[in-house]
Amino acid sequence: MIDPASVLEAIATLRETRRFLDTPVPDEALAQVLEAATMASSLNNAQPWRFLVLREPSIRRALGDLIDAVSDELYGKESHSITGERTPLRDVPVLVVVCRRPLPTDAEWPSSVPAAPVYAAAQNLVLAARALGLGTRPIVLHRRRDATVRAMLGLPDDVEPCVIVPVGWPETGFGPLFRRPWESVVTYDRWSPA
Amino acid sequence: MIDPASVLEAIATLRETRRFLDTPVPDEALAQVLEAATMASSLNNAQPWRFLVLREPSIRRALGDLIDAVSDELYGKESHSITGERTPLRDVPVLVVVCRRPLPTDAEWPSSVPAAPVYAAAQNLVLAARALGLGTRPIVLHRRRDATVRAMLGLPDDVEPCVIVPVGWPETGFGPLFRRPWESVVTYDRWSPA
Repeated sequence: MIDPASVLEAIATLRETRRFLDTPVPDEALAQVLEAATMASSLNNAQPWRFLVLREPSIRRALGDLIDAVSDELYGKESHSITGERTPLRDVPVLVVVCRRPLPTDAEWPSSVPAAPVYAAAQNLVLAARALGLGTRPIVLHRRRDATVRAMLGLPDDVEPCVIVPVGWPETGFGPLFRRPWESVVTYDRWSPA
Repeated sequence: MIDPASVLEAIATLRETRRFLDTPVPDEALAQVLEAATMASSLNNAQPWRFLVLREPSIRRALGDLIDAVSDELYGKESHSITGERTPLRDVPVLVVVCRRPLPTDAEWPSSVPAAPVYAAAQNLVLAARALGLGTRPIVLHRRRDATVRAMLGLPDDVEPCVIVPVGWPETGFGPLFRRPWESVVTYDRWSPA
């Protein structure tokens, strides 16, 4: 039996985690989160996702420092004082690189379509983590350095590292999100530029 | 208090709905589902999603018939006998077009990145629906007819109709999904072509 309120609350309190404890993530919890990710829908059930799970310190350091540097470059180090000091990504116990493998039919679609199931899988991943009390945040900043990331992780050129998700226990908990009222982003029956 | 098992079970039983009852979807349930969609994360909290909710019969008929025709063209009408006769999309009580509005920074990213939050929002939408017992399935087939869809819905050229989600009460329930074992799509610390 599913408690609907639990699902809605998990979705509505999935605050991005910026400060992580260094407590390890149990293998069983990580397995549950990864399995949930694979439950997303995909066209013809092609399941084009692959998950690269980084736990070894040297690779977390290399990739984590790269992403933190991109963040500082885009937003400035001073942004830390606004959003609160974040845990360096190298120190988060697990980094999951959510990848897309190519399919022969990809070129038949507008460019974002083949990645759609992979982003859905990443959303399942962060929601399952939140249900278990694990903190995450979806990162795309590494996409400013695709060539470097590919070289670092040994990714083939045709594999897209869509999202990177740090996973660990949050220093503080979860809470309400700041979003526009849903009514302001919904129109009925025909588009209107609201 | 969130029951973690409810969230994991909702994710693991989100079978795509192909046969819908014609029972109306209550406004309150639709509101909960749409609000959940808006809870996804987005870079700089830009929330680039817009939801076009189609309930008026003539527009559902036009868009639904278009999508069903693309499906028959790609898979053949005989596919119905394999997957079971599906409800014509025109007869599903609600069709939600999950759209992306452009941001000035879109061109700075690889092509699928700006749509990432929109696909995450669509996943929240289908999960919230499943929690409430409402059936859905994410559709991208309309992307073979972007120009026609834009004209039909009055979408500006720069708005991407990422996913269409029919929403209604399922004729049969939910159940386990058929996916590769999660271990077969996970590698550790470095890519390996599994």
